[in-house]
Amino acid sequence: MVKVAVVGATGYTGEEIVKILARHREVKITALSAIVDKPMKISEMFPSLEGKCDLICRELDIAEVTAAADLVFLALPHKVSMQFAPKFLLAGKKVIDLSADYRLPAAVFQKWYGAEHTDQDNLGKAVYGLPELYRDKIKKASLIANPGCYPTSIILAAAPLIKEDIVKVDTIIADSKSGVTGAGRKGLLSLSFGEVNENLKAYKVNEHQHKPEINQELSKVTSKVVDIIFTPHLIPMNRGILSTIYFKLRGESSAKELIKAFRKFYPKEPFIRIMPEGALPQIRDVVSTNYCDIGVVVSGMNAVIVSCIDNLTKGAAGQAVQNMNIMCGFDEREGLV
Amino acid sequence: MVKVAVVGATGYTGEEIVKILARHREVKITALSAIVDKPMKISEMFPSLEGKCDLICRELDIAEVTAAADLVFLALPHKVSMQFAPKFLLAGKKVIDLSADYRLPAAVFQKWYGAEHTDQDNLGKAVYGLPELYRDKIKKASLIANPGCYPTSIILAAAPLIKEDIVKVDTIIADSKSGVTGAGRKGLLSLSFGEVNENLKAYKVNEHQHKPEINQELSKVTSKVVDIIFTPHLIPMNRGILSTIYFKLRGESSAKELIKAFRKFYPKEPFIRIMPEGALPQIRDVVSTNYCDIGVVVSGMNAVIVSCIDNLTKGAAGQAVQNMNIMCGFDEREGLV
Amino acid sequence: MVKVAVVGATGYTGEEIVKILARHREVKITALSAIVDKPMKISEMFPSLEGKCDLICRELDIAEVTAAADLVFLALPHKVSMQFAPKFLLAGKKVIDLSADYRLPAAVFQKWYGAEHTDQDNLGKAVYGLPELYRDKIKKASLIANPGCYPTSIILAAAPLIKEDIVKVDTIIADSKSGVTGAGRKGLLSLSFGEVNENLKAYKVNEHQHKPEINQELSKVTSKVVDIIFTPHLIPMNRGILSTIYFKLRGESSAKELIKAFRKFYPKEPFIRIMPEGALPQIRDVVSTNYCDIGVVVSGMNAVIVSCIDNLTKGAAGQAVQNMNIMCGFDEREGLV
Amino acid sequence: MVKVAVVGATGYTGEEIVKILARHREVKITALSAIVDKPMKISEMFPSLEGKCDLICRELDIAEVTAAADLVFLALPHKVSMQFAPKFLLAGKKVIDLSADYRLPAAVFQKWYGAEHTDQDNLGKAVYGLPELYRDKIKKASLIANPGCYPTSIILAAAPLIKEDIVKVDTIIADSKSGVTGAGRKGLLSLSFGEVNENLKAYKVNEHQHKPEINQELSKVTSKVVDIIFTPHLIPMNRGILSTIYFKLRGESSAKELIKAFRKFYPKEPFIRIMPEGALPQIRDVVSTNYCDIGVVVSGMNAVIVSCIDNLTKGAAGQAVQNMNIMCGFDEREGLV
Repeated sequence: MVKVAVVGATGYTGEEIVKILARHREVKITALSAIVDKPMKISEMFPSLEGKCDLICRELDIAEVTAAADLVFLALPHKVSMQFAPKFLLAGKKVIDLSADYRLPAAVFQKWYGAEHTDQDNLGKAVYGLPELYRDKIKKASLIANPGCYPTSIILAAAPLIKEDIVKVDTIIADSKSGVTGAGRKGLLSLSFGEVNENLKAYKVNEHQHKPEINQELSKVTSKVVDIIFTPHLIPMNRGILSTIYFKLRGESSAKELIKAFRKFYPKEPFIRIMPEGALPQIRDVVSTNYCDIGVVVSGMNAVIVSCIDNLTKGAAGQAVQNMNIMCGFDEREGLV
Repeated sequence: MVKVAVVGATGYTGEEIVKILARHREVKITALSAIVDKPMKISEMFPSLEGKCDLICRELDIAEVTAAADLVFLALPHKVSMQFAPKFLLAGKKVIDLSADYRLPAAVFQKWYGAEHTDQDNLGKAVYGLPELYRDKIKKASLIANPGCYPTSIILAAAPLIKEDIVKVDTIIADSKSGVTGAGRKGLLSLSFGEVNENLKAYKVNEHQHKPEINQELSKVTSKVVDIIFTPHLIPMNRGILSTIYFKLRGESSAKELIKAFRKFYPKEPFIRIMPEGALPQIRDVVSTNYCDIGVVVSGMNAVIVSCIDNLTKGAAGQAVQNMNIMCGFDEREGLV
Repeated sequence: MVKVAVVGATGYTGEEIVKILARHREVKITALSAIVDKPMKISEMFPSLEGKCDLICRELDIAEVTAAADLVFLALPHKVSMQFAPKFLLAGKKVIDLSADYRLPAAVFQKWYGAEHTDQDNLGKAVYGLPELYRDKIKKASLIANPGCYPTSIILAAAPLIKEDIVKVDTIIADSKSGVTGAGRKGLLSLSFGEVNENLKAYKVNEHQHKPEINQELSKVTSKVVDIIFTPHLIPMNRGILSTIYFKLRGESSAKELIKAFRKFYPKEPFIRIMPEGALPQIRDVVSTNYCDIGVVVSGMNAVIVSCIDNLTKGAAGQAVQNMNIMCGFDEREGLV
Repeated sequence: MVKVAVVGATGYTGEEIVKILARHREVKITALSAIVDKPMKISEMFPSLEGKCDLICRELDIAEVTAAADLVFLALPHKVSMQFAPKFLLAGKKVIDLSADYRLPAAVFQKWYGAEHTDQDNLGKAVYGLPELYRDKIKKASLIANPGCYPTSIILAAAPLIKEDIVKVDTIIADSKSGVTGAGRKGLLSLSFGEVNENLKAYKVNEHQHKPEINQELSKVTSKVVDIIFTPHLIPMNRGILSTIYFKLRGESSAKELIKAFRKFYPKEPFIRIMPEGALPQIRDVVSTNYCDIGVVVSGMNAVIVSCIDNLTKGAAGQAVQNMNIMCGFDEREGLV
């Protein structure tokens, strides 16, 4: 029984991690922390946890968490994680960080997140926690940079076609649509029901901070530099990301062949589902699951790939637990199906 | 052409007043103010106003507004209105206040809104702006206390039955359901999409600050003291209030007779629609209109009355303009149909 | 390992039963049937089931289901269940029927559902499957009439106060608000997104077919005839029922005392949660759980009780599994937490 | 006062036409027809019309409509319009058809809509009713093929860049997101609230019947053949289309220059609004308006254009009335602002 802690347990992502861990048969949650008015049972905050996890959530005390847990999930805002991660690592703990702090080289991080990186030592040791690409490294890692939600939905759908040299890499366009929890649990006017409901908008067109993360990972699967066009949109629903990704084929290819390439790339992945020819994924089939569903359309020299994930599960908390399962030698599906 | 100003033009209610006034053929908007970062065209904030109202919205300057307008709408938070209303009144302006500041006696106001009333002089002169009950007084008023949204939906549905002595007044229960804009344009976590969507709750059960307003007005139509049970609920939709109101009949009565009583009480009201027997109102039929739709069910010695309004129109901005139309001698429907 | 079948597996309720059973450690799903174009894996219809239940769903063949299963869930429309239940019972199977067919005496059934009851033999043997009231009978039952969703939310909140003689039984009013899945998976214009979204309505005021069921059960806990006023409303959300129930107290009582009475009535119920004084339940805390959350407000001689359930879980599929757990001697919480 | 009829007045589009015409100062609605159980006041079906239009809606009687009206709106399904249009035209009426029946050459129509065209005589005379491109022809037309909703949102955003030779025409990708009313008022399971809410999907990827219409119109503004990639998506909201359109620039260009090109192409269009640099449109700013809002982002050799319309207004009913205004010599904005 591995002892785990969740730091930042009251955001949408933290709440989801706790929910998954509470049904996990190989771990025991031993510490929960967050910015709270006063220590409070997590099951009082999130009553669906009652009887599953009744631990008290309190302000972070690093010594306490270090004493209580072997592995720590950091569900913290960007720039905050890198203040705490080194302390847990120094104490010999495994750390799975859900922020962006350990995903990018220091210079790229500074450019896109507007802050100097203050833990460059550990940055070099962090493993990008996308199991479908880096399972072997994850096994041995002590610090995981858990991928962003948009990158997960896009990289999983694009990497096989790039790796197999089926598509041109200089013309990739990713048009992503996300539910509102992707923006976090926040009291912002722009996230209020009256502003989001019956509305729809694109934002940060080709300037979203997840773009360098996507480019970095897609470039790694080929010898070429990949620089996609990326447009995120905010959709009036709670959970889910659907990414529609447009490619130019390098040569003639059928949907059948592309599907075959996907299945070859993901021969036994527990959380990747390639749709049969003619079928497309939809959000409701992945909500509250750790699946990434991928559908393929070919039209002339164009391929349109549609991928669906739950932004809080495969896009955050579920993938974090998948990483933990790999790091700890558990069944990779434990807690997730 | 009457010159009008809107103070607090950027809230949901203020925006709605401007939209209605922009299509009103007897008035000219001459000043708009709100708490803004910098002066900005109202049509830039609310692009649907483009070509209809391109006035600049700026921080409130009382002298400027006084110079520009004959009549002032105050779409301000409670306790703020009573700081400004006396100044406009002193300058001879007509004032329609959409806050609660002039609806209740000072002692009742203090009890329910937690603040001493600082403009008791004008409080005594204010007319409660429910045209269906006080049209004659509204005609001559210089200060209107525009009714609350819940009170409008409940008083209009209950007053006829109380007035005609059809129902017992000690057993009235109002169960109201409101869209989210009723809470105002605010960046609160409790109003965020992720918290409101796919959720439903009751709040302030029998303790909502609109209760004394409802009781006061219903008591006035009879010789008895009315003290209702009132439960508001927050519904995942933008606009609309549906109130389901439960009465005990004083004697046997049919739905037909109750409908007749309603039609007698509202012989020519432009914005009251009594549904035929067997029919019930729904929110979509009143959204963006100034109508109050009322349906009647009788079952044994019980009457269930369902009333629907748009909380921003008949429940706020539309009723405010209706009051203005009455005060200024315009067609009461101008701008509203 | 008990072998179970689900007849009607593709409606919202049937889908939910399969999802719960798929994670249940004491049963094995051995047959799934529904009206389908062609036999098809249930996990192809509902991809979130993949890897959890890959059984083929086919047209109902009674002999096949009888051969395969020890216990049968009937998630069928009213009037259809009573055609099949007797056959399964005759074959010695346990049956949990989620329709209304076995909840009411034949005459009452005929009046409210407009059809003669064709299985009166078994009707007399059916046990009303509300574990909190009938656990002992359920243990020994071979035919369960699983309660309606509205009745579950109302009976659980009203029975304790009636049983303890705290409230008057001739003045009870239940105002219920339900998500759209309560109406079933159907292609009706009235259930289409464009008609339901941004809308709200009351329907079948005091004439809903769940009313006699509520009255029957509440009358049984006292010596008096209970005849409530009941108004259901349709809310633009997928799942959940919130019932606001109004009572007149028989004598002076505090919220504290009522809460005490509830806790006395439900001393160890695994799925009833009584909120502490001052707190009210909300739908998001019960969605996808089998809990019924109950909050209490007292105001003068009035009590307002707010109860929340998930209409598909405690209001249908979850309660059906809870009944199965009791019938089969499993931990009552198995599959449900 | 021009006399107008609406055939198909009870669909979402028909309802919207009636609402707009009811506030139009130059026309009088003289006939309304639809498939109805019995003749019924349109204001009983759509209560927000009360006092604005109380005409009776009845089954179509061509002689009656011909006698009553000078101009006929056909808000009918595809393949139905072409049965009726020739009769009204023969009687000398002007016809504005909102179906696809007169938008494409007969062969293309047959390919994409699966039916032989039965009114090829009039097909040749129809004018494609996009005022921003064909105002002069519309003035003299007697038969208007009112554009589809997706095509309107895409053509208006793409035509200026193609015409000015700023972008490559062989790499255009349009990713469109539509509210649910775009699918019509229908009782289909796939449009039910429970299936659409909290869901999102792409459909008919590059195979939607609006694609040949878009290609045809974009090809006409250049000498080259345009063949876009087009993916529509269904969004859980009632109204609105947002199209995100991706172009490769032919040479280096800034957002400023593209905005300038748009403003040059649309020098005085009453319903086109080009956003300033750095700003993007959103659905809530165009809902219930006839505006098409267009925002521009340039990134390297890529341009991303975002356009927003209300699918029922500029995408259907509003544009139809705009066409009528042009045909009849009215102020083009009448009824629409």
